[in-house]
Amino acid sequence: MKNTEKHIINICKSSLNAAKSLGETKNSDRNKALKLIAKKLLKNRAYILLQNKQDIEQAKKNNLAKNLLDRLLLNEDRILNMCKDIFNIAKLKDPLGKVLNSSIRPNGLKISKITVPIGLIAVIFESRPNVASDVAALCIKSGNSVILKGGKEAKFTTEIIIKIIKDALKETNIDHKAVTSLNDYTRKSVNFLLKMDKYVDVLVPRGGKSLIENVKKNSTIPVFSHLDGICHTYIDNFAKKSMAVDVAFNAKMRRTSICGATETILCHKKVARDILPKLINKLIKNDCKVKADNFVKKLNKHIFPVSKEDWSTEYLDAIVSIKIVNSLEDAINHINYYSSGHTDAIITENNTVAKVFLKSVNSAIVMHNTSTQFADGAEFGLGAEIGISTGKLHARGPVSISELTTYKYIVKGKGQLRN
Amino acid sequence: MKNTEKHIINICKSSLNAAKSLGETKNSDRNKALKLIAKKLLKNRAYILLQNKQDIEQAKKNNLAKNLLDRLLLNEDRILNMCKDIFNIAKLKDPLGKVLNSSIRPNGLKISKITVPIGLIAVIFESRPNVASDVAALCIKSGNSVILKGGKEAKFTTEIIIKIIKDALKETNIDHKAVTSLNDYTRKSVNFLLKMDKYVDVLVPRGGKSLIENVKKNSTIPVFSHLDGICHTYIDNFAKKSMAVDVAFNAKMRRTSICGATETILCHKKVARDILPKLINKLIKNDCKVKADNFVKKLNKHIFPVSKEDWSTEYLDAIVSIKIVNSLEDAINHINYYSSGHTDAIITENNTVAKVFLKSVNSAIVMHNTSTQFADGAEFGLGAEIGISTGKLHARGPVSISELTTYKYIVKGKGQLRN
Repeated sequence: MKNTEKHIINICKSSLNAAKSLGETKNSDRNKALKLIAKKLLKNRAYILLQNKQDIEQAKKNNLAKNLLDRLLLNEDRILNMCKDIFNIAKLKDPLGKVLNSSIRPNGLKISKITVPIGLIAVIFESRPNVASDVAALCIKSGNSVILKGGKEAKFTTEIIIKIIKDALKETNIDHKAVTSLNDYTRKSVNFLLKMDKYVDVLVPRGGKSLIENVKKNSTIPVFSHLDGICHTYIDNFAKKSMAVDVAFNAKMRRTSICGATETILCHKKVARDILPKLINKLIKNDCKVKADNFVKKLNKHIFPVSKEDWSTEYLDAIVSIKIVNSLEDAINHINYYSSGHTDAIITENNTVAKVFLKSVNSAIVMHNTSTQFADGAEFGLGAEIGISTGKLHARGPVSISELTTYKYIVKGKGQLRN
Repeated sequence: MKNTEKHIINICKSSLNAAKSLGETKNSDRNKALKLIAKKLLKNRAYILLQNKQDIEQAKKNNLAKNLLDRLLLNEDRILNMCKDIFNIAKLKDPLGKVLNSSIRPNGLKISKITVPIGLIAVIFESRPNVASDVAALCIKSGNSVILKGGKEAKFTTEIIIKIIKDALKETNIDHKAVTSLNDYTRKSVNFLLKMDKYVDVLVPRGGKSLIENVKKNSTIPVFSHLDGICHTYIDNFAKKSMAVDVAFNAKMRRTSICGATETILCHKKVARDILPKLINKLIKNDCKVKADNFVKKLNKHIFPVSKEDWSTEYLDAIVSIKIVNSLEDAINHINYYSSGHTDAIITENNTVAKVFLKSVNSAIVMHNTSTQFADGAEFGLGAEIGISTGKLHARGPVSISELTTYKYIVKGKGQLRN
């Protein structure tokens, strides 16, 4: 066996071992540990910033793209937000030991379905250092051990954050091995990790499309992830004009780089002439590139032509494609065909129409009269999220502490025999 | 593209299409359809028995093993039981549209998490024809389309059952394409089906170990299954003698061929001399082969030696391995190491000991003072089961209608924008 593989198997084994005792801790113990972690991160922010500076300098030398540099950068405010996230996670209800169902059978057997931790989670992420603290906190709260494999760009920052978390855990009754950095920034180590199905229960890749594609293709471990966030906002013929303009604009432009950003705006033909000119004007004024077919193009001379590929493109940028649809059914069909199953919204004052849309669109999150940018664990009141899943099994939409639990059946009898 | 593949893709497409409308039916419509199916199966039992006779004759010619012949065989009673199962499924609460969670956020957004069908389920099964009707009924009840791929031994029986189900559906408002037989009994067709992840959401293999191993290894679709049912009954030092003997005997011997049958009995050393002689006597009298180490062997001259492999062997037969443990901890460690994560039980009058066992044993089902043979969807009050899962994600333990649903988030706003 190669050294890297041995190293990873050893980490898996000690993480699994730590998961056993962590799974039996009380909620109050886990919360106490989380608060201590947040305090220590805040107290040691100067060290974190120092290590982050090293990463940033190295990244500049390597000509890292500007948006990645921004993701990598920490400052006092961002560290404060990391700590706030952890405090919020500590405030959430205990996800463990929840009775999902309980019944007494005619023969007297008492059967309960009770939430328990999944076991061992591995998270592979890229340059954002706050992922390390968010993910560690969510896993501790839900009683799971976690192996963190950060991107090499954020190496120094990730290592100091994990060190502080482990130091904090050493002062509690939680085994510090419950949170471990893979501490190997080679690509080889990722490939080994993807095959550790004997130990790791779930893998969560957080990062760009190529990372997620690689994980999905090669992992023998179940994966929580979304590949694309091709989200739609449909402006129905019963939409209120001002709301349609404001919501669609927010859905596209608030932050264009997040997965919940709208990429395609659908508009019912009956209201296109009334609503689109104002919306398109506002988008273009704010430097959004608008792509649309000939009918819409007539509304503004700064519109670019749209091609079929646009409907399946996640721009993650100030670009939007606009399509006219003839009916609610057309809109639903377009979305169910092109959507990545992440988040899709309708703007309408007609509740019957809204009901059909919410029922028929097959996405993890469906919205009525609000911005797709709200697709986010914290906005949903779930605390931070470990990611958003477009898979249909176990976890769908924001993945937070509930989704990091599974259940077991406990059956209590008095000597009953089966006939 | 080859013909088989084309055939399978066409079936997948029409099944998916049927799933759309099925997912929008009312519970009362689905129940009505189920009752009609049960009535038609009963009414046409003579035809079913005729087709079954053909399968049986062919199987005898092919020298099919006796236990498989028994599984294949239908008679009036067995058809009646199939119909009863369907009526029981119709009686279950609607698993769809259940609000799992609902909250109003500070900004006024109303967020609900609601159960919806998964979509398209494929079930690959071997010789038991009742699987076809059970599975079809569970899928209809939970709003899912299903593709059934039966074993070639049960070809005639499976096809007539599915035909009757489809004929019944044609008299309802449910698209009969929601239930489809692959109607291709080649091995090639299974291999194609395993790769249909673009259409099929979940695959359920039901049958022997080689079928399940093949599916798990080659499927690109998530799988609900258990490979082994290596179940344990632990007789604690606080066990009541008569209960320990009766429950352990029932757990092993009631039916030895089912996955919930106990394969290993663990016994605390303090009560071994008191309890084991009577238990072993009863087992041997009933033609059970007992394998144990030297300490236990002294108790009865008809005991065979046990080897290390026995602890990981699923006998599915009248064979049991017995081990003496020194403590509760020993028992838990043995189980967490050798158990297949299916069902494990403790016999004890000490509730503190039981609590530790139920918490620490990592299996899908953990039991106190009752027989592992109760590990069954119908016994749990879930209606029939599509299988038992030892996976930790989404479905664990008996897989019934709840486990055949997923959820989506519905977000209702009044034009809220995200800051």
